[in-house]
Amino acid sequence: MSHPRNVIYAQAGGVTAVINASAAGVIEMVKRHPEKFGKVYAAINGIVGVLEERLTDASRFSEDTLDRLKTQPGAAFQACRFDLDSIDENPGQYQRVLEVFRTYDIGYFFYNGGNGSMVTAQKVADYCSAHGHPVTCIGVAKTIDNDLALSHCSPGFGSAAKYIATSLLEATMDLFSMHNTSTKFFALEAMGRNVGWLTIAGGLIKTAMPDVPLLILPAERPFERNKFLERVQHLIDSKGYCVCIVSEGLMDPDGHYISIENVEHTHNNDYTQLGGVAHTLSGLVANTFNCKTHSAVPDYLQRSASHQVSQTDWEMAYRAGKAAVQAALDGQHGVLPVIEVIDTQPLVWRYKNVDLFEVADLEKCVPDEFLTKDGMDITPAAIDYLLPLIKGERPIQYRNGLPDIYPMHFDLVEQQLPKYKAVK
Amino acid sequence: MSHPRNVIYAQAGGVTAVINASAAGVIEMVKRHPEKFGKVYAAINGIVGVLEERLTDASRFSEDTLDRLKTQPGAAFQACRFDLDSIDENPGQYQRVLEVFRTYDIGYFFYNGGNGSMVTAQKVADYCSAHGHPVTCIGVAKTIDNDLALSHCSPGFGSAAKYIATSLLEATMDLFSMHNTSTKFFALEAMGRNVGWLTIAGGLIKTAMPDVPLLILPAERPFERNKFLERVQHLIDSKGYCVCIVSEGLMDPDGHYISIENVEHTHNNDYTQLGGVAHTLSGLVANTFNCKTHSAVPDYLQRSASHQVSQTDWEMAYRAGKAAVQAALDGQHGVLPVIEVIDTQPLVWRYKNVDLFEVADLEKCVPDEFLTKDGMDITPAAIDYLLPLIKGERPIQYRNGLPDIYPMHFDLVEQQLPKYKAVK
Repeated sequence: MSHPRNVIYAQAGGVTAVINASAAGVIEMVKRHPEKFGKVYAAINGIVGVLEERLTDASRFSEDTLDRLKTQPGAAFQACRFDLDSIDENPGQYQRVLEVFRTYDIGYFFYNGGNGSMVTAQKVADYCSAHGHPVTCIGVAKTIDNDLALSHCSPGFGSAAKYIATSLLEATMDLFSMHNTSTKFFALEAMGRNVGWLTIAGGLIKTAMPDVPLLILPAERPFERNKFLERVQHLIDSKGYCVCIVSEGLMDPDGHYISIENVEHTHNNDYTQLGGVAHTLSGLVANTFNCKTHSAVPDYLQRSASHQVSQTDWEMAYRAGKAAVQAALDGQHGVLPVIEVIDTQPLVWRYKNVDLFEVADLEKCVPDEFLTKDGMDITPAAIDYLLPLIKGERPIQYRNGLPDIYPMHFDLVEQQLPKYKAVK
Repeated sequence: MSHPRNVIYAQAGGVTAVINASAAGVIEMVKRHPEKFGKVYAAINGIVGVLEERLTDASRFSEDTLDRLKTQPGAAFQACRFDLDSIDENPGQYQRVLEVFRTYDIGYFFYNGGNGSMVTAQKVADYCSAHGHPVTCIGVAKTIDNDLALSHCSPGFGSAAKYIATSLLEATMDLFSMHNTSTKFFALEAMGRNVGWLTIAGGLIKTAMPDVPLLILPAERPFERNKFLERVQHLIDSKGYCVCIVSEGLMDPDGHYISIENVEHTHNNDYTQLGGVAHTLSGLVANTFNCKTHSAVPDYLQRSASHQVSQTDWEMAYRAGKAAVQAALDGQHGVLPVIEVIDTQPLVWRYKNVDLFEVADLEKCVPDEFLTKDGMDITPAAIDYLLPLIKGERPIQYRNGLPDIYPMHFDLVEQQLPKYKAVK
């Protein structure tokens, strides 16, 4: 039997309210198997922390630290939006990672990120293995967008969905109570560049208000101005007001975004940062019907709301970490544990492993059967899908009237290598 | 001793997450004093409901209904944004109110609204009394803006402040975890047309993160572009990122709003609806420093967040209702119970009555001693003031993963008068 080898865990890409539960799952599971694993390091700032040799020894975390991880929003170890270059372009990056992995006898790399990050991680592992230092690479899923293919849902989505639905319900109560002599229209903007999963989560308010005058505009359907205005008019005429939830990535039939915020020039690609569509729709309705309107854009609030975590989602995130370690224990390599449903009433699920490359370039959109024909409402099938994912609440610790959260700081291991110099 | 006379309670103006606790306070307290009060009616949609004779008999509410009221955001009885005309201009309105009050033997009018609404209520009461139908008018305070003069704070503010501080803390955790390779600046927009109370509440995150790189831009201070950008640059250079909380009503040194949403033409005045300043600042920072930025506008979410209610604030709202009824029991007339502080460590407070007209035209701004000299941060005195107001949490009932709230519907009493026709 081979000697225990060490582990690196790292976080990458947009965060969720429960990503650190996955971290805790990895760390706890690794520590439970000393026959297989040595130390578990967490890299600070994803793969950048590996390059820069900024590592903390998570094997030494106290129970208190692990408990705190489980309630912490954002990426406790900081998450990079940074992918390695291609090997041909920049072999030095890969050599450096190999050097770090050799120095710390890393045999396992658990990467908690989006599809792109995980493919990078796999390329790193392949490179190391090809150069005489075998590394097992396992992905840990996370995204509030719920666009992960082959998985019933994504850890992180349920909590964001709970936040969106709660916020929309509360705002709708406000609007309902004021609409007679004041605001007639309110739009809430949900994250989701190409997919409308968080947008359709707004439809969950129908469980509390079955007759709510609600329009749901997911990114999957083109925005048709006249049809939209007709529906708004109909709802205001019949119910007195109208609420709307809309994807930040809503496009017109010609494929242009309804609203564009900034085009950012990053080191390797142009990235269009979206935002403002709720404001645009609000203005359109105000001008068309000469009425008072409001709009809200929760932005980061929806993905960091640790006070609104879904217990179901939390368990999915926690077990995503454990499932990744279990995959390594089972001798798997280059896989991503995804959620498989065993039963739906009530929801029973487990993790199964799929090939990392198999999911990488797929993006799961809201399926047609979840949307009504006019594309502005959801079907009962969508409610059946969404409802179990927001179920359950976690106890929240408060301090001074606020959730007891703050950025965690970790002791770094003493660096053994020369300082990393980025070259290209 | 005079016979018991009936009560009308009504809600007006922008809502809070705890306004219905005040309603419950009024109703419960009235029922406790049958020697003084007969029935307690709630008007649907404020003074409009009085004119239209749309009343519900709250004396008959079950315990369940009262309990539900205590957790319900928005105005359970619907709140009008509608003030009566002047008596000279439109005596018909006042005659109609008198007619309704006579028909239902109303001797007490409790109006839960802003300053303007309460002055209207007082004028109604004076008119009735002058025409042989004496009516006692008592105000019940509420506003998330905290701009009520002569009161330590306003019921509704503490909960909105808790929501704002929680949201900013969570978003800051997100930003902190991503800033190395992604977003460097995040701005959150708080409500407050002329006052920055909710904006300075963002400063409460310093209790969790003493060194947070935070800029606070309250409506009380002019926005100086260059000084702002200098501070942003300094914080990004020194800490890697910068968070900002800003009043929707921020103005430049010339008195122009930094951002204007819509100018709405209502039946009696132009009303400029604000919004978009966080987005504007975010764009300014992105363009100036060529970095990724984000912004959030919670809008109605901050005043309807029943899942984020401050226990202290809830008690203030509940007792505002009781204090109003107590004032009537004490033979007071034309008063508003406001919060008087007896001790500060810990906060001990009680209601005292002030003349309605005395507070009507006053607006309480954030005092100079709460703001640092550069106007972009708050002092320890501000924290001392704010902290007790967000203290404590209320248990939240959930149903299907969402707070168990939905618009309440009330049986209306059978109308006894001809249908109201608005004339002018």
